Amino acid sequence: MSRDVSNRKLRAGIVGGGQGSFIGAVHRVAVALDGEAELVAGAMSSDPARAEASAKAWYLPRSYGSFAEMAKAEASRPDGIDFVMITTPNHMHFPVAKAFLEQGIHVVSDKPMTFSLEEAQELVTLVERSKLVYALTHNYTGYPAVRQARQMVRNGELGEIRKVLAEYIQDWLMEPQEKTGNKQASWRTDPQRSGIAGCVGDIGTHAENLLEFITGLKITSLSADLSTFVEGRALDDDANMLLRLENGGKGLLTCSQIAAGEENALSLRVYGSKAGLEWHQQEPNTLIFKQPGHPVQLLRTNQGYMSDESKALSRTPPGHPEGFFEAFANIYRLAFADIRRVESGQQAQGGYPTVYDGLRGMLFITRAVESSRQGGAWIDMKL
Amino acid sequence: MSRDVSNRKLRAGIVGGGQGSFIGAVHRVAVALDGEAELVAGAMSSDPARAEASAKAWYLPRSYGSFAEMAKAEASRPDGIDFVMITTPNHMHFPVAKAFLEQGIHVVSDKPMTFSLEEAQELVTLVERSKLVYALTHNYTGYPAVRQARQMVRNGELGEIRKVLAEYIQDWLMEPQEKTGNKQASWRTDPQRSGIAGCVGDIGTHAENLLEFITGLKITSLSADLSTFVEGRALDDDANMLLRLENGGKGLLTCSQIAAGEENALSLRVYGSKAGLEWHQQEPNTLIFKQPGHPVQLLRTNQGYMSDESKALSRTPPGHPEGFFEAFANIYRLAFADIRRVESGQQAQGGYPTVYDGLRGMLFITRAVESSRQGGAWIDMKL
Amino acid sequence: MSRDVSNRKLRAGIVGGGQGSFIGAVHRVAVALDGEAELVAGAMSSDPARAEASAKAWYLPRSYGSFAEMAKAEASRPDGIDFVMITTPNHMHFPVAKAFLEQGIHVVSDKPMTFSLEEAQELVTLVERSKLVYALTHNYTGYPAVRQARQMVRNGELGEIRKVLAEYIQDWLMEPQEKTGNKQASWRTDPQRSGIAGCVGDIGTHAENLLEFITGLKITSLSADLSTFVEGRALDDDANMLLRLENGGKGLLTCSQIAAGEENALSLRVYGSKAGLEWHQQEPNTLIFKQPGHPVQLLRTNQGYMSDESKALSRTPPGHPEGFFEAFANIYRLAFADIRRVESGQQAQGGYPTVYDGLRGMLFITRAVESSRQGGAWIDMKL
Amino acid sequence: MSRDVSNRKLRAGIVGGGQGSFIGAVHRVAVALDGEAELVAGAMSSDPARAEASAKAWYLPRSYGSFAEMAKAEASRPDGIDFVMITTPNHMHFPVAKAFLEQGIHVVSDKPMTFSLEEAQELVTLVERSKLVYALTHNYTGYPAVRQARQMVRNGELGEIRKVLAEYIQDWLMEPQEKTGNKQASWRTDPQRSGIAGCVGDIGTHAENLLEFITGLKITSLSADLSTFVEGRALDDDANMLLRLENGGKGLLTCSQIAAGEENALSLRVYGSKAGLEWHQQEPNTLIFKQPGHPVQLLRTNQGYMSDESKALSRTPPGHPEGFFEAFANIYRLAFADIRRVESGQQAQGGYPTVYDGLRGMLFITRAVESSRQGGAWIDMKL
Repeated sequence: MSRDVSNRKLRAGIVGGGQGSFIGAVHRVAVALDGEAELVAGAMSSDPARAEASAKAWYLPRSYGSFAEMAKAEASRPDGIDFVMITTPNHMHFPVAKAFLEQGIHVVSDKPMTFSLEEAQELVTLVERSKLVYALTHNYTGYPAVRQARQMVRNGELGEIRKVLAEYIQDWLMEPQEKTGNKQASWRTDPQRSGIAGCVGDIGTHAENLLEFITGLKITSLSADLSTFVEGRALDDDANMLLRLENGGKGLLTCSQIAAGEENALSLRVYGSKAGLEWHQQEPNTLIFKQPGHPVQLLRTNQGYMSDESKALSRTPPGHPEGFFEAFANIYRLAFADIRRVESGQQAQGGYPTVYDGLRGMLFITRAVESSRQGGAWIDMKL
Repeated sequence: MSRDVSNRKLRAGIVGGGQGSFIGAVHRVAVALDGEAELVAGAMSSDPARAEASAKAWYLPRSYGSFAEMAKAEASRPDGIDFVMITTPNHMHFPVAKAFLEQGIHVVSDKPMTFSLEEAQELVTLVERSKLVYALTHNYTGYPAVRQARQMVRNGELGEIRKVLAEYIQDWLMEPQEKTGNKQASWRTDPQRSGIAGCVGDIGTHAENLLEFITGLKITSLSADLSTFVEGRALDDDANMLLRLENGGKGLLTCSQIAAGEENALSLRVYGSKAGLEWHQQEPNTLIFKQPGHPVQLLRTNQGYMSDESKALSRTPPGHPEGFFEAFANIYRLAFADIRRVESGQQAQGGYPTVYDGLRGMLFITRAVESSRQGGAWIDMKL
Repeated sequence: MSRDVSNRKLRAGIVGGGQGSFIGAVHRVAVALDGEAELVAGAMSSDPARAEASAKAWYLPRSYGSFAEMAKAEASRPDGIDFVMITTPNHMHFPVAKAFLEQGIHVVSDKPMTFSLEEAQELVTLVERSKLVYALTHNYTGYPAVRQARQMVRNGELGEIRKVLAEYIQDWLMEPQEKTGNKQASWRTDPQRSGIAGCVGDIGTHAENLLEFITGLKITSLSADLSTFVEGRALDDDANMLLRLENGGKGLLTCSQIAAGEENALSLRVYGSKAGLEWHQQEPNTLIFKQPGHPVQLLRTNQGYMSDESKALSRTPPGHPEGFFEAFANIYRLAFADIRRVESGQQAQGGYPTVYDGLRGMLFITRAVESSRQGGAWIDMKL
Repeated sequence: MSRDVSNRKLRAGIVGGGQGSFIGAVHRVAVALDGEAELVAGAMSSDPARAEASAKAWYLPRSYGSFAEMAKAEASRPDGIDFVMITTPNHMHFPVAKAFLEQGIHVVSDKPMTFSLEEAQELVTLVERSKLVYALTHNYTGYPAVRQARQMVRNGELGEIRKVLAEYIQDWLMEPQEKTGNKQASWRTDPQRSGIAGCVGDIGTHAENLLEFITGLKITSLSADLSTFVEGRALDDDANMLLRLENGGKGLLTCSQIAAGEENALSLRVYGSKAGLEWHQQEPNTLIFKQPGHPVQLLRTNQGYMSDESKALSRTPPGHPEGFFEAFANIYRLAFADIRRVESGQQAQGGYPTVYDGLRGMLFITRAVESSRQGGAWIDMKL
């Protein structure tokens, strides 16, 4: 923690993300998008030949056969990486994060944070001790319109929150893709690599995170109905939940990977005692604000009236659409600022999802599965 | 039941619908829209002066001081009404329907069908005995796109139904309107006139009816969370429910009258093993059909490719929007055809919501309230 | 002009609208929708048998073999019609209007007003002399959102108008429908019945009328490019025009009946020095208002913030969509109010399209055809 | 032209793009997005201090005081740049391109291609002689949905093209921004730096390019009406045009920078004898396809049914929106492939906008201005 990062790009390493990975390629674009970091090392596959080939395809100067080797080697180089990007299946999130944290290397990890709630709790402790930056790519909170939504709730523009409708529905697992050699489907439906939940862990957590992020309210209890519609699948591929919020508000959350014809339909609707708002990830540059007695408002990213935070996360003038990569890159941008702060002895300021958000996510997964196993009993969402 | 209706407009009478009524005026437009019926008599208010003034404003030839008087008088006139339209608050639906049925007069009634489940069961018996037409204005099933949706499910175009998302959210009761002299709000939030449920009875039943209509599947059990957000209100103004369908499908239903900024957002999304569909009442002339691996399709009312039933309920060429009144009028149109059939000794053919739909609605209300009182217990939706 | 219409429905007669007519059926719904008039007489076809059958299908008490006969007979009856609805092909608009005006009977006529500009000028004189109500069904100005748009321009909310984009595009004549026995297509593409223009007369005039209605500005000159894409067709089926407005504003107008896949896409966009607005007939209950530096506003019909005029033309609460018929009926509603005023000796107040709008329409058709024949020369739009 | 680029990122230099530049920052993101190139040198401003500061902010290893110096120095370095990005105001496009082409360095330039038509013709010659890659960032053709649209036209899915509606409207110059120190506004409204046209050159050319790209048809003549609405402005800020296409099709093109409330509304609608299509830049991942007699189709980027070319330019699964940067980066991606081909002795394959597109753009600007000066005379769009 005494690297001088003031006049150079940050140096990134990646674990996972080898050929065939979806999210690895996303991280690669996101990390480089603003020209603030360069990717210089990787342990991109547990298969060394594949790791090597992947690294070469990305012009990486340094390729490693294992993450453990990489953590050690990079920590000892004067030009070693400043942070690692974890883009493996879930079961590897914790051990990889641990290895790099222990070497004093900052971490940006994919979600859900860990394989189990226990690991999540342990990781919180590790991060707290490390004084390092740990950012979790709950990337949807990187959208400028989502930041605006949070700000408007904070400003009291919606009044007291009464009702929340959170959805994340897709269709890509409506057939047994895991039996066709699809790598993504294979690990995501495998309890050994994904954890106790499938759909709920993969995308339900995004909906939960978005809901708590925008409303600033914690879900206090839930009643869940998890389903597996595709025969032979070991994990849930659909879930419906009733929610209660800490302020007395109520909600619904639904997530699905078998909703025929849906691509990546994450959305949130929030209704308060004064107004409502609505955001849809598939048209991310518009925030819909609904005040009774007033025309519906469409707030558009990077317009002057948006909050400073929202505008700071926009790169183009209004009407030049930004999308998934740019939102993802915003999580990196915020994490980079903290890495630079921490490395120069300043206080971290956050702004990106952290280990605490990750813990909430693991708690959500755990309690939802419990509730469903108990026939939809209301379960408190606490440790 | 031996009126000759073959070469004339049908003659309608109305109970309720006096000045200040919303739904009465809707029925008036709907009944006359196709030029198939004329409104000739009314008992438009329990206040005789008001009844008289209302009848005069509508140029009604005959005004009565009470529905009982009207039923008798009209039954004994050679030019008496063929059917009665019931547009009163809920607690009067049953007694009015009973009075006219007993006089051999067909009935078109507003929903929910009765004040209580018991009345609903009794009404079923009365209607069955009467051999008269009883139509319930679950008007949203009158939309041509809704008929198309049902047909597509029937044709198997969606495959086996797996997931259903039903919503009906409004905001008009987000403030205590019932305390401001608003007639609509006043009776709808009054257990003496509305029944055991508020929002669930008023609009939740529409969502339930639409869901069962389009999917052709019965809800077999539900877990409900009813809320009253406006202080001092005696009935629910919001509800969230988990649903299970007879074929193993799952669903969510939410209804609200406190969803700030929402006007009249009734929608249904249905996902099957082959495809999904989506319909929104506020843009009623479009049906969205989503087949994985194919472009999303927007089906538009009265296009040649729509089903015969759907086209038969459309009056304008595509792109000339039809709306709420026309859908409402479709229920009347279908009921008229049956009244003409029955009066000429033919078999009734239906096509409009009947007393059995009304019974489902009352059962839905009853079981939802029970479930919520039991902390969201799963309750079977059966008698 | 001394009928007592104060406590009864108005009595309507119809010329045209026989079986196979599209617009006749629209007028029938529109005239009856508010329960303010009843249709009692018709000369529905030049073929007497067809006229009789059409009248019977609509339960008309009186059917005539010719409009001339009808005008005389009705004028001499104590219970004769108060007004006539003209729903014939264009070439009959003038003679029918003349016949009824001369009998002291009010007129509601379909558009374009006449067959030729000369007839239009003559009709202006006839109407002025008659002191009768003459309403032209430029029905799109009957939409509540259109009234709101006009009001906002009048209020100065858009500033000085700079740019106008008017469109009315359809596809129903993209094939030679007139050769397949389609009655609508047949007369609309026939110079003997339609006049000197096809598409420009049939729908271009609606766009022109809407533009001048909403902006309150006259088109002062135009440069037009009319096309006939379907081989063998005698009249234009597509047109593009450059416009100049009286205040220095500029515009484009396009109309087409060969725009593949378009249903009935009438829209107007207006940009001023302060703000812009946008309205689309196919989603008629929303008016889009765009102020630079502010969120886009979606104004919704019958919300409290709409103008009194707009709300007075709305019948349902927000979110209960009104459409084509209701807008059409609004023209009738406004005309009825004036008929009642005139019959009771009061001053007519207008609010509906009149003979002067009809004259503008005929001028537009005439000048557009001239400009196109002169290779797109700029032609002044004046008499 | 004998650099070995096979196992490394390409090396880029930039001219222009200094602090305050909008488009420079866009190019920076676009060039790096796929990890195929790195930016290593710049002459980012004519002011050396500013150039230096800009280069430092972007961590550029090499900063030059002038483009001429840069061209020479880089050409002589073994690790010199492979290509230059030109992101200056229009008047510098030609001299910069010339300087680098003469040094054997590939060029990616912003549009419009040159200051004048004469320069454009000269540049064509220079590029042809050089055998180097010259790519022009008509970035909107980089959108996957635009490629799909072109393919569908080519496949004959629309039939013979009859009507085209091209629009590019914005509002950012509706006030005299050039008088407030806004750098962008200042040079874009300055005939010394922008050329003979303002709005028509800046964005009209994009609409023209998109139209010819998608339809595969050349505009053969046009009748234009250019306007300057903001007082004191030296160049046009709005234009309306009638178009004729080489196949007999007709069209409209409108561009504006004073359309109050519009952000960046580039759109194209194309109607053929069989079907129509519609694309809107602000919702770029959807292509609307309209076949008469069939449901409207929404084609979504990266779905399996999209063309191979379209999918090759998509990076994320459907529903993960890509936007402006990704489309821009696609132009780079295609140019990179050609640079690698050319450097390894293979044939260039194109796929990106070239010097010939640039020439069309300059011809369009020139003829539009001529037509408008001649009162809207039809002018042939040829040299």
